[in-house]
Parts: sequence; C-alpha cells; structure tokens
Amino acid sequence: MVRLMKTTQKKLSEMGLFVYEQVERGRKPYVNIPQRGLGNVQFDKKQRMLALGDKSSKRYYMNVAHTRKFMQTMLVATYCKQLVDESKHAAIRELYYACKRSVAGTKDNTFEDQSESDPIVEDLEVSLDVLREQLNLTADRRGYLYGDITLKDGKDSFNCARLGRGGWSVPGTVEEIEVGDCTADYILAVETAAMADRLIEEKFAQKNRALIVATQGQAPRAVRRLLYRLHNEQKLPVIVFTDGDPWGWYIYSTIKHASINLAYLSERLSIPDARFVGMTMRDIETYGLQKVTERLKETDKARIKDLLAYEWFSHKAWQNELDLCKKLGVRIEQQALANKSLEFVAKKYLPDKIERKDFLP
Amino acid sequence: MVRLMKTTQKKLSEMGLFVYEQVERGRKPYVNIPQRGLGNVQFDKKQRMLALGDKSSKRYYMNVAHTRKFMQTMLVATYCKQLVDESKHAAIRELYYACKRSVAGTKDNTFEDQSESDPIVEDLEVSLDVLREQLNLTADRRGYLYGDITLKDGKDSFNCARLGRGGWSVPGTVEEIEVGDCTADYILAVETAAMADRLIEEKFAQKNRALIVATQGQAPRAVRRLLYRLHNEQKLPVIVFTDGDPWGWYIYSTIKHASINLAYLSERLSIPDARFVGMTMRDIETYGLQKVTERLKETDKARIKDLLAYEWFSHKAWQNELDLCKKLGVRIEQQALANKSLEFVAKKYLPDKIERKDFLP
Repeated sequence: MVRLMKTTQKKLSEMGLFVYEQVERGRKPYVNIPQRGLGNVQFDKKQRMLALGDKSSKRYYMNVAHTRKFMQTMLVATYCKQLVDESKHAAIRELYYACKRSVAGTKDNTFEDQSESDPIVEDLEVSLDVLREQLNLTADRRGYLYGDITLKDGKDSFNCARLGRGGWSVPGTVEEIEVGDCTADYILAVETAAMADRLIEEKFAQKNRALIVATQGQAPRAVRRLLYRLHNEQKLPVIVFTDGDPWGWYIYSTIKHASINLAYLSERLSIPDARFVGMTMRDIETYGLQKVTERLKETDKARIKDLLAYEWFSHKAWQNELDLCKKLGVRIEQQALANKSLEFVAKKYLPDKIERKDFLP
Repeated sequence: MVRLMKTTQKKLSEMGLFVYEQVERGRKPYVNIPQRGLGNVQFDKKQRMLALGDKSSKRYYMNVAHTRKFMQTMLVATYCKQLVDESKHAAIRELYYACKRSVAGTKDNTFEDQSESDPIVEDLEVSLDVLREQLNLTADRRGYLYGDITLKDGKDSFNCARLGRGGWSVPGTVEEIEVGDCTADYILAVETAAMADRLIEEKFAQKNRALIVATQGQAPRAVRRLLYRLHNEQKLPVIVFTDGDPWGWYIYSTIKHASINLAYLSERLSIPDARFVGMTMRDIETYGLQKVTERLKETDKARIKDLLAYEWFSHKAWQNELDLCKKLGVRIEQQALANKSLEFVAKKYLPDKIERKDFLP
C-alpha cells in the first residue's frame, strides 16, 4: 500500500517537474496523453482483453485549442497530488466541485460541468499508468459481498459470512483492503440483488464454499477491482451468473475482457479466465422454462447485433448463443428459475452446471 | 417475530377461510379490497402523514370484470402463505415468476407481466393490514449503514462501525433484525453514497455520535423500515441530508410523511418527527456557494410546482424554500460543499447546523 502511494506520488511529482522544467528552460510546456478513442482500442487475442494501442498526443499550453484542457489537467493533477499526500479520498463529483472556480480576469470557470473534469481524470489515469483509485478518487458504489472471507480495513477486521443476510457493502475503493482467511473455492458474481439474496437465504455460500458478489447491474469499478484482486491474490476462479440476454452477457464480458471506455485499465481490471454459468438460451429447453421467458424488445435485438460484431464475442459458442437468442426472440431472467421452486437455483441449477463445468467461454 | 408471523399467517388463513366458506354456502365468493388511488389518499394533519381513507371495493369471482384479478389474488395469497409457513423470502419478481403458469383450457397465463402481480401484492398488504415484508416479500435493495450499533440477524451479531469503510449493506427486509447496543445520539440519513463515504472518511459518525445511513437516492423500503424501527425502538432522532433541489426535498418528505403510493403504509413507514438539515437555498449565501450551484432544468421547475401544491409542503418554511429556489433558478448539491474543502461538511457545515438546530420542518 505504502508502495502504491509512493509510486503514484512520484508519478504525479514527475509530471509536475516535467512541466516546470519546460517553463524554466523557456520551452512551450506540454504533457503527453495517450489516445483513448475507439481508434486506439483493439482486442488483444493473446491476452484475451481489450487493450489500448500506442497512439498518443501532446497537449500544449501555448496552443489555444489545448490551453483550457492543459490548465484543467494541471488543476486535477494538483488536486490528486494533495489527496494522495493527505491520504484522503474524493468522489469524482467532489473533485469537480473542488476544482471549480472563476478564472481571474475572465467570465470563465475552470470547469463548467463535470463532463469536463471526468475525461481529465481518465487522461491522468492513462498517461500516468495508474488507476483513479490510486489517485484516491472513488467511483459511485454499488454491490455487496457475502461469504466466508475475512477482510481488513484499517483497524477493522470482519468476516463477510457473519453479517447477517445483509453482507458487506463494497466501498468506492478497495485498494487498501487487506484480504485475510478465506475458505471459499470460487466466487460467484451475480447480476441482481434479488438473486444474490436468494442464494444467501438458501445458504448457497456455505454449502458450496462460494463467495457471492452482487454486482447490482453492470459491475461498478470497485466490485471489478475486488473480483480482480480476489482472483489474482487468492487464486479464486470467477464464475458469472446473469440474466440470459445481451445486457447480462455484456456484464460478463466486461468482467472478463474489460470494456471499450476502460480498455486502458484492462490489465488491472479484466479477468480473462472468468467463466459464464448462465442464464443461457439452452437453459430454456433443458429446464422447461418456456412459459417464463420474456419477448425481446427492439433495443434487445439491436444490442444482440452489436455483440455479434464485437471481436471478443467471436467465439463460436457465443455466436451460437446470440444467434439462438435472435431466433427464439426471447430473453430469460435469473429469477425466472423461481418458477421451478425457490430453492431450485441453489440446490439444482447452479450446483449441477458448476459440477459439470457447463460454462460458456 | 414469532408473533408477527403468527399474525400474518392467521390473517392469510382467515382470508382463505372467508372465501372457502362463501363457496361452501353457495354464495358468490369475494374479497374486500380498500381503494389505494389518489381519490382515497389524504394528508392527515394531526398525524402529519399521508393516510388512506376508508373507501373499499368488493372483488367478486363471479363478476367477469373481476374474475382474473380474483384468481390472481388467491394465487398470490396462497404463495405468500407458503412463504410465511416455510420462513422463506421471495422478491416480488420471483413471486411473479413463481405464480406464472398456463390456465388449463385457455391460451391465457395466470399473469402476463409483473405489472399484474405487483398491484395484487399491494392489495394484499392493505386488505390484510400487513407489510409486504410480513408476507415475506422483499423489495430490491440499496443503501448501507455505518456507525456504532450492534445488529443481530439469526446467529450473526456485528457492529456496524467495525466493517471498514464499507458499512453494512441493508438487506431487502429488516423485519427480523434485532437491535443490540447503540451509542449513537441520532441518525443522519444521507442521499448520496459519495457524501456518506465522505462522512465515513472524516470519522463523522465517531466524532458526532451519529449513525450514517446512505439512502442512495429515494430511500428503499427496507431503509425506511430500518429508520422507522431505529427511530421508534431506540428513540433516535432522524436528520435528513439531501441535495438542495425538489428531488432531494421529496426524498426527505417520503421519509417523513410517506408517499402517495404507499400512503396505506404510513403508520409503519413514516417518521413525522424527522428533520431536514440541508442543503437549503439559504446555504448558498451563508456558505458562499454561488459558484457551485447548477442551473434548474425544466423538469426541476415542474417538480417545484408539484411540491408547492402538495399539502405536506404547505408549511411556510417550505413554501419559502421552494419559492426561493424558483427565484434563484438554481439547485445546490451536497457535494458542492467540497468546494470549501473536503472536511468542511463534516467539521463545520453539519455540526454547526445540527448544534444550532437550524432545520427545516
């Protein structure tokens, strides 16, 4: 942890010194910012994750088209330096408000809107090669963890299977969490809170030596970092369980390969070995769920088309799955399994599929 | 707890018996359902909460306009009886899937969509005079609790100030949670997770003997039940802290007076003694936040008009607040306080206003 902070502090200082020395030497100051657009993102087949290419641009103070962004970059970097120095954390919205002020002698503000400060944060992450969490910036939080693992945060130490049915609320940053004892064999990442709660009530975690992580929709950054750390530090396999529709499957792919806008963070967020347990289109027939499917909407169909075209969905198994979904014209939710019985998902569906390793890649 | 379950079981049994006996006697079976529409909701000035009137309707099996809903009412009641008998919980979406099936000899399903089962749940709540949580139905969950309070859930006992910066994730139902030791003097209910996290980092809970509850937007039912129980069982005052805009103020009013659609639950959810600490329009001048306000959008202005007309916003202080908001044409977020300094909200803003009892009613 101390190491992490030192590195980030050093990188921020070096950036400041680099600009300072340019000014001292009478040169036009600039910073180097790798490009983050689609034109610089590709799917790295070997690493099995989305990755940033090596295109970058220089941002010059003396170029009127760059001046405002250059100033903003310096303000945000300065603020982050201060956060890291003081071991404080700020939400990106707090950062926006904290850096917002009038520019003397003009009618302009340093930032007019958070949509101006957010990309600067991303610029800093990628140009310094650090996570925003290492800049002590936090994202909005969602998601919780349940199961037999002991975590330490500062002076607190707690077991996440001993918090009633509530579970541990995953904070906006998990960089400083230390992982203690853990008896689990794998992590089950679950899309909906209702399904995670079902599994908690059925004592799935205890009976299957699993950790249950509710992503509550698209997994927030802190949840992804938590999964990443538990996967890499504790060698826990990650199994993902979402609704059977293009939205659920994309939640899986984001955990596995990272996403287009966060491609520059792939190496610190993506889990190429993650596996997908369900829901799948084949489940509908296998488990007799025809009566509890939902018809696809136009937006669902359009999303299937997107996914079919993504290189990271090019595996035959996924192409078949997406084609079958289009053909059947339906989606199937996790909670539709309640039609069999409430305990069906915990006693039959998941244990059987996981035992057989009946996964999508 | 055992008492609660017995009562609900008894009420469900009585409903079943009532219908059964009508059939036995050759009468046309019906159930009595209080009306829940706006026409049967009023603001009870004495109780200071929204309340349901005494209009009700009979739902007949033999009336073709009622038959489908009657059948659905019986299905949902039967399912809930089973849940309560088995001490199991289900999400309302699970209930929908569990009760969905073909009706023999027809092309119809018992339920075509969750929008058919949700109102039946509400019908049951109001006609049996129980909470859906007592029917063992859970709502989607959000929100977390941080501070020095010991909670018990089954065999687990944990202190919510010892869970690192994460806090305890509030489950979908808190009916069976037991409250143990608590040193807090009051509860601060906070709209945004980012602000709750700011207060956790600043050790506001410890320094001010407060419990911090993040509602993460409009407080979910379980969070409101938790606030209600802590307020009534532990005699803890509830202070609400939201953004300074009609949406934040409505979050407050829902905690205080309940809401139009849940008027029938007011007595079990609303906290008429709750107080509002901020953000207010006056804060903008008092704390010099003019630079970090946001301009009102048309939807904000329309919402102000709604609130001005609600009887439960008729207090002069609130009418003035709403008028001032309209006049200034701006809103102010909790996180705008970060413009002063990160610790400002925890060290100055909240302690000063709470000390002075500078609240809106």
